[in-house]
Amino acid sequence: MKLENIKLNLDTELVLNVGDPIGKTNAPRCYNKLFERLHMNAIMLPCEIKKGELPKLLDACRLMGIHYLCPTMPHKSDFVDLLDDVDETSKLFHSVNAIRLDENGSHGSGMDGKGAVKAMEEGGAKLNGINALLYGAGGISGVTAYELAQSGVKKLYIANRTPEKAERIAKLVNENTAAAAEVIGTDAASLDKAAESCELFANLTPLGMKGFDKKHDYLGFIDRLPKTATVFDCIINPPLSETITAARAAGLNTVPGMRMLVAQMDVIFKFLFNQTVTGADKQACIEELCNYLGVPSNF
Amino acid sequence: MKLENIKLNLDTELVLNVGDPIGKTNAPRCYNKLFERLHMNAIMLPCEIKKGELPKLLDACRLMGIHYLCPTMPHKSDFVDLLDDVDETSKLFHSVNAIRLDENGSHGSGMDGKGAVKAMEEGGAKLNGINALLYGAGGISGVTAYELAQSGVKKLYIANRTPEKAERIAKLVNENTAAAAEVIGTDAASLDKAAESCELFANLTPLGMKGFDKKHDYLGFIDRLPKTATVFDCIINPPLSETITAARAAGLNTVPGMRMLVAQMDVIFKFLFNQTVTGADKQACIEELCNYLGVPSNF
Repeated sequence: MKLENIKLNLDTELVLNVGDPIGKTNAPRCYNKLFERLHMNAIMLPCEIKKGELPKLLDACRLMGIHYLCPTMPHKSDFVDLLDDVDETSKLFHSVNAIRLDENGSHGSGMDGKGAVKAMEEGGAKLNGINALLYGAGGISGVTAYELAQSGVKKLYIANRTPEKAERIAKLVNENTAAAAEVIGTDAASLDKAAESCELFANLTPLGMKGFDKKHDYLGFIDRLPKTATVFDCIINPPLSETITAARAAGLNTVPGMRMLVAQMDVIFKFLFNQTVTGADKQACIEELCNYLGVPSNF
Repeated sequence: MKLENIKLNLDTELVLNVGDPIGKTNAPRCYNKLFERLHMNAIMLPCEIKKGELPKLLDACRLMGIHYLCPTMPHKSDFVDLLDDVDETSKLFHSVNAIRLDENGSHGSGMDGKGAVKAMEEGGAKLNGINALLYGAGGISGVTAYELAQSGVKKLYIANRTPEKAERIAKLVNENTAAAAEVIGTDAASLDKAAESCELFANLTPLGMKGFDKKHDYLGFIDRLPKTATVFDCIINPPLSETITAARAAGLNTVPGMRMLVAQMDVIFKFLFNQTVTGADKQACIEELCNYLGVPSNF
């Protein structure tokens, strides 16, 4: 990146990517690429902040004229109660990953679910009226389930190693949306049975992620999905994860996780900076990220 | 600047240029140019902080992993009592403009005097055993007088519109160095008389600075300086200030203020980052600054 967009003056906006640990974050590659392409006088840098220090960080930002924070693990939840203004969905799932500080207060929103669903739609998934199978009940599962329901998904099957976590999400979806959510087992028989009626499968676990030592026990249910189904994976690296690879082998439409990351940029840039991100901008982000991660960008 | 030195990762050092107002600061052009040339993973940004907020700023820096501050007006003095470790000269003149925060505490130093004297020496001024005439008794005058004394200047004449301020500096010099300092009037006769024995004249006032409405009442004493004398000006913009122009007309050796700014980079980069700045690096800073200010660099 040339970063010639950064004017190095008092108007240069410092955007903090806040987490702990934050050393391996990919977000600054994406944000700074967009700042460059959109000619914004801004730079994102990672900032490692311990749990419990967020109120001090907000004071520090006010003192230093920092107006934008992009929290990641483990802070997405803890910020919610510290902000003046958080939208209902982000409150419900207790997660924000974009924060704007202005003269009217502090405004936060969680964009993970919106990013995932936007990536699915952009990737050609038909969501209205379908059944969907979600695997995982961690950080992004609840908001993704919620946004899928908002996009017209009728029935959500949620599978998770710890069923209690899936039950919590199913309850929120059933109470707050028009969709019906049901928790199913992670055994082959349960997954196979659900898959047969689902036009979407979404892996929302870290299984298969580079550096994460666990893989999926069973992905055979992918072959049971209808031939018109779409398979989504939240995993960014490798772009061709086990889930995506299995789906392609089955001849299905696929949406790798890197598409989620860049699809999120749309909604985040609108929320934080009131800026529009184009398809070409998103493609440039993908190329920047793939180059950075040393993986091919023609996935 | 291409800024390709900035890796946008957790090791990227954010260096704050702290002042109020800070909107017109030139320092980031200089520092960032050097970071680029020295391949340092660092960026300087200006940061406007109100008087009285410095303790909070130091806490914020500790929280956010910021290790370097370069204070300017009005904070150079107020930082001195807030730091763990300040060298004796900077304590004496109560001014720091470079601060390093590390695991051993907070370390500050004032580099204005060192920068001015280094620029004079690099510009060909002989200082050892000479008499010098200084005009002005503001922020940088005391430290410049002190550093001149350290470099062997034998006698210092100090002229200032408000003689009490000059007396204070003369007292500090007389009590703390081997040089003899004497306050003289700002009338033509006093200046003319002192000039005859001085191998150095230094303007340490803002008289003649772009945007500052006052000029020197009298510069005729420059013609009384020996033909071997050097004339120094602290004014950065315009590089060819009235003082420098008058000295050149008199055929004297000159050191414009921009040389002081870049000479200071030597000592500051050593103190803050343990980095060596070369002559070519300093010339590149001058070109960057002149280009930024829209003035010719062939002064």
